[in-house]
Amino acid sequence: MITLLTDFGTADYFVPAVKGVILSLNPQAAIVDLTHEIPAHDIEAAAFTLGACWHNFPPGTIHLAVVDPGVGSERRVIVVEAGGQMFVGPDNGIFSYVYARDPAARAYHVTRGDLFGHVVSATFHGRDVFAPVAAHLSLGARTESLGYKISNFQRFDLPAPAPDESGVGVTGAIIHIDRFGNCITSLTTHELNPAALKENPKLTAGHHEIKRFCTHYAQMPASDEPFAYLGSAGYWEIAVWQGSAARMLGAQRGMKVTLNCGAS
Amino acid sequence: MITLLTDFGTADYFVPAVKGVILSLNPQAAIVDLTHEIPAHDIEAAAFTLGACWHNFPPGTIHLAVVDPGVGSERRVIVVEAGGQMFVGPDNGIFSYVYARDPAARAYHVTRGDLFGHVVSATFHGRDVFAPVAAHLSLGARTESLGYKISNFQRFDLPAPAPDESGVGVTGAIIHIDRFGNCITSLTTHELNPAALKENPKLTAGHHEIKRFCTHYAQMPASDEPFAYLGSAGYWEIAVWQGSAARMLGAQRGMKVTLNCGAS
Amino acid sequence: MITLLTDFGTADYFVPAVKGVILSLNPQAAIVDLTHEIPAHDIEAAAFTLGACWHNFPPGTIHLAVVDPGVGSERRVIVVEAGGQMFVGPDNGIFSYVYARDPAARAYHVTRGDLFGHVVSATFHGRDVFAPVAAHLSLGARTESLGYKISNFQRFDLPAPAPDESGVGVTGAIIHIDRFGNCITSLTTHELNPAALKENPKLTAGHHEIKRFCTHYAQMPASDEPFAYLGSAGYWEIAVWQGSAARMLGAQRGMKVTLNCGAS
Repeated sequence: MITLLTDFGTADYFVPAVKGVILSLNPQAAIVDLTHEIPAHDIEAAAFTLGACWHNFPPGTIHLAVVDPGVGSERRVIVVEAGGQMFVGPDNGIFSYVYARDPAARAYHVTRGDLFGHVVSATFHGRDVFAPVAAHLSLGARTESLGYKISNFQRFDLPAPAPDESGVGVTGAIIHIDRFGNCITSLTTHELNPAALKENPKLTAGHHEIKRFCTHYAQMPASDEPFAYLGSAGYWEIAVWQGSAARMLGAQRGMKVTLNCGAS
Repeated sequence: MITLLTDFGTADYFVPAVKGVILSLNPQAAIVDLTHEIPAHDIEAAAFTLGACWHNFPPGTIHLAVVDPGVGSERRVIVVEAGGQMFVGPDNGIFSYVYARDPAARAYHVTRGDLFGHVVSATFHGRDVFAPVAAHLSLGARTESLGYKISNFQRFDLPAPAPDESGVGVTGAIIHIDRFGNCITSLTTHELNPAALKENPKLTAGHHEIKRFCTHYAQMPASDEPFAYLGSAGYWEIAVWQGSAARMLGAQRGMKVTLNCGAS
Repeated sequence: MITLLTDFGTADYFVPAVKGVILSLNPQAAIVDLTHEIPAHDIEAAAFTLGACWHNFPPGTIHLAVVDPGVGSERRVIVVEAGGQMFVGPDNGIFSYVYARDPAARAYHVTRGDLFGHVVSATFHGRDVFAPVAAHLSLGARTESLGYKISNFQRFDLPAPAPDESGVGVTGAIIHIDRFGNCITSLTTHELNPAALKENPKLTAGHHEIKRFCTHYAQMPASDEPFAYLGSAGYWEIAVWQGSAARMLGAQRGMKVTLNCGAS
């Protein structure tokens, strides 16, 4: 089983070309689309989206992730083994959430150019490089045989919760903004368990203080007041009823948020 | 074989999470997307779209339909057996067209919580509840073993053709408006056989009288005059050449239409 | 293996209806979407997109291509054998790039109406005519048994490179404009090998002279100057950094371009 995650869109020949190459090498491959609608070149959005669903797939699944603004440059082609699954893509941080979930993840720099397509274009390594590598893995190629193990793979830092300046609260950051403008924070049930909602927690994001916390849609306020809810990826998210929380908060990825529990 | 119909869109991790859960439980499942572009929370649009294509699938197909504004509330999870196929989803009317096509449809309230995911989120029952149920059905679970049979399942009334006030015509309603603004009525070849077009039928919708009826695209008038044609779902539809009939007619779902055949 | 290419979009019941019909006739069929986002009725865009990826698929693949403004008229249903693969669609030029790539392509007019659906609608031959034909092919039906061989199939002329008036340069045309506004020309490495870029070639399109040629993204100028690069479909393309080359050039499909190598 091979999944695909790209920023190619679904209107052009790019995605079917990748699938055709895989199926030509391994006609038995079962291909599943994660999404092809990652914003162009947005490695962090790709990393978040992959990070939110790869663990739902069965052991042995091969995830092919191609958001690759560095195509044609010297960035490396890597294969990662983590959590009983395999990952193929550029070494640009796209697997950061995978590394975070499995500290024992092993990464390999793929140097076996003979596995690539006969002609490697300068702009479409999804078809000419990554697809053949994924297909060979699905046919049983061992990661060790594809290149050599590396430890200096690219990863971006995921914000770890930390005490805020006052020592009372905990800080996190907005790690993803979805297409509805919902702001996914780095805070999880470790920082705020739904059972603690009776202690009147408060979430500060920019100039906004959010005191309304919901655990399911029916509780969401039908007003333009932003509220927090525990999203299905396991993070507390900030939303506005039928509106864009990102716009209301002036939020961007990386913006700091602070959680205070039981305060005043 | 398991089909999926949702309002999740294809840009996020929602659809692949559902697929991953199914494939983790049953790696042999063949998954087919119906669509994930149902307008958010639009149960009636979901019901129409499912109703227009489920019967094209082979016997034994399992249709998983998740448009579920009531997620997290007390709405029931149901499995329906109808027309030799199976349906999994929330009990909110989403299977109304299925019930209409097979009066012998049997619905079961699924109470076997042990089949659900280990952790059930408050907002994503597609992944945590419905996907596991569909996967277990695909592995051979019998519907009777999942819960108990119910007869008070939710369904919305599909407009039955009726004589109009004058007794001459027949009334129906607009049951769906597609993304081009075409208005699908509840009238079928039972109410107006294409062979009867020579009798100069007339279709009244709002303030508009439609006298032009077409059976294929080549007959469609390249003007801004609305016209009726027999759509591929089996219903007479109202369209405007390269325009939105819904906007021209001021139409909304549920709007009454009246057909007169052979009248003046 | 059956691929699908249509202008149906993915929001409605059209694509799943086609898949359901195929899978009802051949439950073992593996269906792969090429794209369903061809602009409505744009046969040339469909032909280009199919032409850019069909050869990536394994021998024996069946490609079902339905962009069919003539549905319901007298246009023929055809099956084409080319390059070790098969093609099913309307005889309207949609396979022009296939014919160009394999001059030995053989086309058959399908006349076996008994293979079609029980009821053939006037507007949805994708479901009622083309899908059953593709399914029967996947079950082993021989092309010769479906109808009779024809030689007068529709094809549109793909622009062949020709010397320009001065005899110094070579002319081509814009054969496709993608959704970003990139202009794909008919010129390939035969007309301009990347190794010849040191000779300062010049590409004229409308009133614009393009002197900047790139072989990969990292070379692309972050300015509003249009530039040429060798696209992954094998053609030289004209693009603008984060902009629409088509808008800047006032380009439409068919517009002439001229390449001069080594000139002044």
